[in-house]
Amino acid sequence: MRIGFIGLGRMGTGMAASLIRAGHQVTVFNRSAGKAAPLLGLGARQAGSIAEACAGEVICTMVADDAALEALACGEHGIVAHLAPGTVHVSCSTISVAMAQRLTGLHAGAGQQFVSAPVFGRPEAAQAAKLFVVAAGAAPALECCAPVFDAIGQRTFVMGTRPADANLVKLSGNFLIAAVIESLGEVLALTGKAGIDAHRYLEMLTSTLFTAPVYQTYGDLIVAGKARPAGFTAPLGLKDVTLALQAAQDLRVPLPLGSLLRDRLLRLVAAGDDQVDWSAIAGLAAQDAGLPARPGPAASG
Amino acid sequence: MRIGFIGLGRMGTGMAASLIRAGHQVTVFNRSAGKAAPLLGLGARQAGSIAEACAGEVICTMVADDAALEALACGEHGIVAHLAPGTVHVSCSTISVAMAQRLTGLHAGAGQQFVSAPVFGRPEAAQAAKLFVVAAGAAPALECCAPVFDAIGQRTFVMGTRPADANLVKLSGNFLIAAVIESLGEVLALTGKAGIDAHRYLEMLTSTLFTAPVYQTYGDLIVAGKARPAGFTAPLGLKDVTLALQAAQDLRVPLPLGSLLRDRLLRLVAAGDDQVDWSAIAGLAAQDAGLPARPGPAASG
Amino acid sequence: MRIGFIGLGRMGTGMAASLIRAGHQVTVFNRSAGKAAPLLGLGARQAGSIAEACAGEVICTMVADDAALEALACGEHGIVAHLAPGTVHVSCSTISVAMAQRLTGLHAGAGQQFVSAPVFGRPEAAQAAKLFVVAAGAAPALECCAPVFDAIGQRTFVMGTRPADANLVKLSGNFLIAAVIESLGEVLALTGKAGIDAHRYLEMLTSTLFTAPVYQTYGDLIVAGKARPAGFTAPLGLKDVTLALQAAQDLRVPLPLGSLLRDRLLRLVAAGDDQVDWSAIAGLAAQDAGLPARPGPAASG
Amino acid sequence: MRIGFIGLGRMGTGMAASLIRAGHQVTVFNRSAGKAAPLLGLGARQAGSIAEACAGEVICTMVADDAALEALACGEHGIVAHLAPGTVHVSCSTISVAMAQRLTGLHAGAGQQFVSAPVFGRPEAAQAAKLFVVAAGAAPALECCAPVFDAIGQRTFVMGTRPADANLVKLSGNFLIAAVIESLGEVLALTGKAGIDAHRYLEMLTSTLFTAPVYQTYGDLIVAGKARPAGFTAPLGLKDVTLALQAAQDLRVPLPLGSLLRDRLLRLVAAGDDQVDWSAIAGLAAQDAGLPARPGPAASG
Repeated sequence: MRIGFIGLGRMGTGMAASLIRAGHQVTVFNRSAGKAAPLLGLGARQAGSIAEACAGEVICTMVADDAALEALACGEHGIVAHLAPGTVHVSCSTISVAMAQRLTGLHAGAGQQFVSAPVFGRPEAAQAAKLFVVAAGAAPALECCAPVFDAIGQRTFVMGTRPADANLVKLSGNFLIAAVIESLGEVLALTGKAGIDAHRYLEMLTSTLFTAPVYQTYGDLIVAGKARPAGFTAPLGLKDVTLALQAAQDLRVPLPLGSLLRDRLLRLVAAGDDQVDWSAIAGLAAQDAGLPARPGPAASG
Repeated sequence: MRIGFIGLGRMGTGMAASLIRAGHQVTVFNRSAGKAAPLLGLGARQAGSIAEACAGEVICTMVADDAALEALACGEHGIVAHLAPGTVHVSCSTISVAMAQRLTGLHAGAGQQFVSAPVFGRPEAAQAAKLFVVAAGAAPALECCAPVFDAIGQRTFVMGTRPADANLVKLSGNFLIAAVIESLGEVLALTGKAGIDAHRYLEMLTSTLFTAPVYQTYGDLIVAGKARPAGFTAPLGLKDVTLALQAAQDLRVPLPLGSLLRDRLLRLVAAGDDQVDWSAIAGLAAQDAGLPARPGPAASG
Repeated sequence: MRIGFIGLGRMGTGMAASLIRAGHQVTVFNRSAGKAAPLLGLGARQAGSIAEACAGEVICTMVADDAALEALACGEHGIVAHLAPGTVHVSCSTISVAMAQRLTGLHAGAGQQFVSAPVFGRPEAAQAAKLFVVAAGAAPALECCAPVFDAIGQRTFVMGTRPADANLVKLSGNFLIAAVIESLGEVLALTGKAGIDAHRYLEMLTSTLFTAPVYQTYGDLIVAGKARPAGFTAPLGLKDVTLALQAAQDLRVPLPLGSLLRDRLLRLVAAGDDQVDWSAIAGLAAQDAGLPARPGPAASG
Repeated sequence: MRIGFIGLGRMGTGMAASLIRAGHQVTVFNRSAGKAAPLLGLGARQAGSIAEACAGEVICTMVADDAALEALACGEHGIVAHLAPGTVHVSCSTISVAMAQRLTGLHAGAGQQFVSAPVFGRPEAAQAAKLFVVAAGAAPALECCAPVFDAIGQRTFVMGTRPADANLVKLSGNFLIAAVIESLGEVLALTGKAGIDAHRYLEMLTSTLFTAPVYQTYGDLIVAGKARPAGFTAPLGLKDVTLALQAAQDLRVPLPLGSLLRDRLLRLVAAGDDQVDWSAIAGLAAQDAGLPARPGPAASG
């Protein structure tokens, strides 16, 4: 299949590579030219404009936020202006529900199709084609994208026919991860101040009731005090929790735990370091307990 | 080994049965006489007093709360008064850190040994000898109890030499479970009000990042609106979260998520129904979103 | 002075009347024509367009929210397009910090002046020219507006030269009022469930430490269960607390009490009644305590 | 009237002096002997034991907490053991609801009377006989105490016949003050980070909607960063908020704002300085916003 791909950050590069490896003909476009090099080496073609990237059957976008996607999709040189009728725009970015709804309308108005397909997984999972894809959109559009999803992920979960539902589900997933981080941060502050060994404690948790990888991954990061380099930065975490709360407010759904998570992340970024991993909110619980900062690569870096 | 066992609720009965099946000579005592019958059928002996139950090498207690254990252990007819020097009292109840510290002192003063060994697992796990045991105490005392732990559980985690540490760890574990319930309650209210199918949503979560059994178990309970019969009642959940917060206050550790959980459970019990499962706090998030109550066995029962 | 006035809700009508009574020549404009009648009776002139209302030395606006002010001020038929250079737009509406910043830029770009002057006070205070004016803007512009402020208010507080500062101060004031409501709601739930007489309790509070009118006013509303007709509706309260939190997030300032207030107001509007007074959040504390709803005009109306 | 007085801290000394000045015959007792000297100079008599202090018609106690009052009142050398039948014990201390209920029972069992009469006011108000007295107890007992209340306070508020109600009201009052501090701390962090002058801002608040002395007093302390010497220390504030939450839990009343206040105070004391004024929780909001600590006497002291 001929697939355009825009957005070559760490996630996007891995996903585009997976598409190429699966045998698709991939045309990439990125505002920062240098990022395409590794993919060109794998066989990708380079587009000189958004319009060129839109020439295939599907155009995939994987960018940082609403503003970046708006810049790509809207405006006279954007995707909506250049996509052929019937063609599908698959947005894999973690964007707002409102933006997904707006794009759904814009593409429909232009006789095009829009699918939201945000993914769960870190850059390593993107490279290994092991992402989880959460997709929503009209059935024919989803069918059209199936080869894309098969190439980038280990499993696809279809959430329904409204694209924005996939975005809400993705945001809620990040919300749940942040809740795990906060809860671990609090119990580790409590048991830590009592003098209980953190590794032994964490091993018990992850061997019994909390066997999900998310507890292991974040538990290790917290205990090691390893907030740098960030796998997912605090400002991105704040963005996603804020988007979840915004969607919730639009739907009139109070989320008190969400409010707590937002306040924690906001406090973290207020301290001025935007490069810290979002798991560093766990350190705030320790700090408020009067515990010394955990030594970590951060201290030496 | 000759083991005394006091506290024949659903958990205690299962644990005592496991001890008998493992070949130990078990003498049971319970204030409500009838509860011992099934164990006598398995070969247990019945003690006529606490003192008689204390005649073996180890005395195990598994009761509801601090007050129940205080009534058993202290006072002129209590365990401390009757246990032979060197003998071990293993407390498996979920009690406060302060009570564990007090018992540690009382037993030490009487030349006896005290071990805290609270367990994770539901009554079915107790019956099946599949509990997880979290133990703390002096090394010789723990060694003495090893056959007990082997008989009742699938794995034992030693937390250190201070018995109260095991209690704090147990309380923190229930805290983490409550956090999972609250976080699921909030995302299910959010996605539910958006019209996303709860079963499909939950299946996605538990197939990807949240594979731990605790998400499956509580997710199912919440989606089914199945708060009765309670596996663990709201007042018990409130008790444990309150004990965690009390221990945290004594150590000067603020736990804002803990405060949220306490307020949720308190609101649940304020509604007047003490027989509801603690997972019903998830319904509060739905209620606050203006969603109708989930139909469940509760409605028809 | 020749003053244009746009926005004839309950607040705006009272303010415009005060301007007329103070001897100013007031030209009013309102999208809903009928609202101007009482003011025409007092001597106001009716403008047929925004442009006509902009013909004086100052144009005052008092509308519901950002969207309403944007509709008035921006666009080809808007205030910015028609105001003469050097003329002042005084915005008395409770709008966002971001909108005030945007208007500051737009007016400056057009060689005009912009002043933010939100007010504290209920419609009765507007009628009686007893508002408190919180103003910010460049000194010459503020000087120009002094007669306006003198006519509508009992006192003016200048917050500085950046118009948006006055908006932030106004939002923070509504935040503080909401905090008073929440705190009263919680202590009244607590003492009420203990069986203490609410009137006697409130009289003690407002005679001793909490003599500010805000405690008396909201205390009476809460105890009477009088949430209708609303003096200030829950959706407006939610809007203002949300704007305060939004400004705080832009500045990276966590406000945990603000988060609590937002969640309370969101829960109130999720129940579906947009006509309820924002003080009804106090009833949520009572409800969560399992207390019966306070009888009030609402019940009988 | 012959009045015994026990508890000569700063508050108690002022109250006892007021009683003497009003013409009562006051017998004082204090565990730390030196504290009585100023009162002896005013005409007080010194008791050599609790029993001696109990010889009058009324015995007043004003001590730090439950434990101190329990030590005074219970036990074989305590007040309950020595008070003549029909005599009144007036407890002015800020104690728990549970302790007041217990003392009510103990005194009734001994044929004595018990009145709770906690006070609002700082030590200066105690010296000036300007306290506010919140009293509850049986009508005859209250009548008996009227001369005491008249002597120490500017006004007495009778809350009912159950002594513990007065204690709950007192705790709720401190809760409300803490809420004022927190809300001021948050808005001052917000407006401060925006660059708005704190003095001008505070003057506006306290001249308009928030004229109660509590806003002026705490606003000034916060803006000045004056947390030392403490008028009321953080551990005492934490004690009172905790007692309010404990009473609320016993009554099954969730208080989410109370939980926030408790967490703030707990964080403050976790930092290790027990001599700081409770108003220093306002500094936490500023700290979380990334603002520098306010210079204050603390920095130079």
